[in-house]
Amino acid sequence: MTDFAQITLIGMGLIGSSLARAIRSHGLKTRLVGCDSNPQHVAEARALNLVDQITSDPIDAVKSADLVILATPVGSYADLGARLCPVMKPGAILSDVGSVKASVVKTLQPLMRDDCHLIPGHPVAGTEQSGPKAGFSTLFDGRWCILTPPENTAPEKVRALEKFWQAIGSTVECMTPDHHDMVLAITSHLPHLIAYNIVGTARHLEEVTKSEVIKYSAGGFRDFTRIAASDPTMWRDVFLNNKDAVLEMLGRFTEDLTALQRSIRYDEGDKLFDLFDRTRRIRKQIIDAGQDEDVPDFGRHTDDIPD
Amino acid sequence: MTDFAQITLIGMGLIGSSLARAIRSHGLKTRLVGCDSNPQHVAEARALNLVDQITSDPIDAVKSADLVILATPVGSYADLGARLCPVMKPGAILSDVGSVKASVVKTLQPLMRDDCHLIPGHPVAGTEQSGPKAGFSTLFDGRWCILTPPENTAPEKVRALEKFWQAIGSTVECMTPDHHDMVLAITSHLPHLIAYNIVGTARHLEEVTKSEVIKYSAGGFRDFTRIAASDPTMWRDVFLNNKDAVLEMLGRFTEDLTALQRSIRYDEGDKLFDLFDRTRRIRKQIIDAGQDEDVPDFGRHTDDIPD
Ligand SMILES: NC(=O)c1ccc[n+]([C@@H]2O[C@H](COP(=O)([O-])OP(=O)(O)OC[C@H]3O[C@@H](n4cnc5c(N)ncnc54)[C@H](OP(=O)(O)O)[C@@H]3O)[C@@H](O)[C@H]2O)c1
Ligand SMILES: NC(=O)c1ccc[n+]([C@@H]2O[C@H](COP(=O)([O-])OP(=O)(O)OC[C@H]3O[C@@H](n4cnc5c(N)ncnc54)[C@H](OP(=O)(O)O)[C@@H]3O)[C@@H](O)[C@H]2O)c1
Repeated sequence: MTDFAQITLIGMGLIGSSLARAIRSHGLKTRLVGCDSNPQHVAEARALNLVDQITSDPIDAVKSADLVILATPVGSYADLGARLCPVMKPGAILSDVGSVKASVVKTLQPLMRDDCHLIPGHPVAGTEQSGPKAGFSTLFDGRWCILTPPENTAPEKVRALEKFWQAIGSTVECMTPDHHDMVLAITSHLPHLIAYNIVGTARHLEEVTKSEVIKYSAGGFRDFTRIAASDPTMWRDVFLNNKDAVLEMLGRFTEDLTALQRSIRYDEGDKLFDLFDRTRRIRKQIIDAGQDEDVPDFGRHTDDIPD
Repeated sequence: MTDFAQITLIGMGLIGSSLARAIRSHGLKTRLVGCDSNPQHVAEARALNLVDQITSDPIDAVKSADLVILATPVGSYADLGARLCPVMKPGAILSDVGSVKASVVKTLQPLMRDDCHLIPGHPVAGTEQSGPKAGFSTLFDGRWCILTPPENTAPEKVRALEKFWQAIGSTVECMTPDHHDMVLAITSHLPHLIAYNIVGTARHLEEVTKSEVIKYSAGGFRDFTRIAASDPTMWRDVFLNNKDAVLEMLGRFTEDLTALQRSIRYDEGDKLFDLFDRTRRIRKQIIDAGQDEDVPDFGRHTDDIPD
């Protein structure tokens, strides 16, 4: 079911530990090695029995791996690449799950040996939580995984990695790193930036107390706090490593927001209605595409709802 | 359990129908009358047996009511007030559930007779869905309901309305209409505006196709589409009727966003980290306050998550 006799996961946080759980729950036959620099996470991964071998030494972890997946913040890749590339097994694949791709290729490509294969990846799935305990085996089920193999990558290697992601429930799509970064800038990076910003703005208000912001958060604000609770290190690295696409999207967003502001100021009710009506339809398409559920609540459970 | 022999709900949509369900499920003894101008919603309310009497004639609906609650978009209040105030029962309360309050007082106060009592209200609870079928009886459970009685309102009338909201599971707080509009501008109106705007921006992108926006929406975008699927009429009315507070909050938001944009442009990783770290703590406080649940997903169900 997999072409890899040994898979090594560097980083046993939300994504790494979810990968370990998914590999096991889908019955993939492979030796599974985990590595984390955080001693507490090493202990948790061991206690949860997530992998066959857990270590804090990345060199030890990768040397007999056929597939190495980096699942750490992308800011750590330069250092990890410099240490791992020299000791990787000939023929092995180096992949990752980082949320940006062009900078990852730029960082890792020059460090690669000729007899190893760089195939960056990004599962478009996640939550706002971190660490080995936050992971779960179904995280990748029905979600997309984007691969951005450099030109001239051996097709059978790309195929093997594709099969791996399919085996744990994902659908795979290949694209260029630049296109990935542009698409994700609007579907993930900008939403996070906006959420962080609005929660930051709310913190500064003096006319409205912090306790009021919290009390009345069910009016919509709480959904933004969920996204703005995502890991600070991971997101700092995302914005620093996808600067151009994020600034481009932000420019468009601000332009549109200025027009919306004008419509409010000049009582242009029809323009407001038109925008609000069009955005509603996009929601329907996302539900039809199976990328969200049509539950009648703002992030709460339908099991609470008896009728 | 309630001081009202008859309660009339004008508007049997999400909020009106949830009120009807909550009144019944909490066993409140009262005659319940519903009114809606949409014939389909009248039929649905009848089929669902939500009230004792359902009508499309608001005058007929209110004439023997002790409590009238407007649950229609706030843009309809001027017309409804002009028609209903003359025929209301002496001693009756006119209340509402509208998401803005200062403009509601300004609209309805001049229409009130001396022997009736205006006590505007706003349950801070809702979903992005509309119509009688979307309602549910637990919508107000553990949520806040804000009342904004004008000065000199008879205290026993305020107390009676307070008891009503408490009887269906809410906690009541009184404040001035202006303060309400300021607080809700940041906890509800600005989040909705931002969500509508980002979904609108995504629609315009040509480098990124619409199908990609939908496919990869699980990266965060889909949570914004949920909010941006809210009723266009209701939200047009909210923005037109809370213009000053919304524009004030939008100004602060944009100022903060410009600073954030600068931090990305000039690689100020520490500033990004600091903001992202602080916003994370607000999330924790909202969960501690019972206004959201700490479920490890982006709006999906935990029942999907076996481990
Ligand atoms: N979270 C999401 O929703 C999501 C979705 C798709 C992709 N991603 C990507 O997945 C990657 C991991 O994110 P995550 O959410 O899983 O983060 P996480 O839960 O914080 O896990 C990362 C783990 O890696 C450890 N680590 C950091 N630097 C290391 C190093 N040099 N060597 C070994 N271990 C190291 C961390 O330790 P410390 O605790 O000491 O930092 C932590 O245990 C990121 O690149 C992110 O962009 C995340
Ligand atoms: N949705 C929320 O999350 C939320 C939360 C708190 C407060 N509120 C407030 O609650 C109020 C109602 O919102 P909702 O979400 O319940 O809307 P909704 O589901 O669209 O229901 C409103 C109902 O009132 C009907 N209606 C409109 N004008 C009327 C009139 N003049 N006379 C009689 N019926 C009329 C509508 O008919 P049509 O279908 O023909 O328009 C619809 O059936 C709004 O003022 C809103 O600000 C909403």
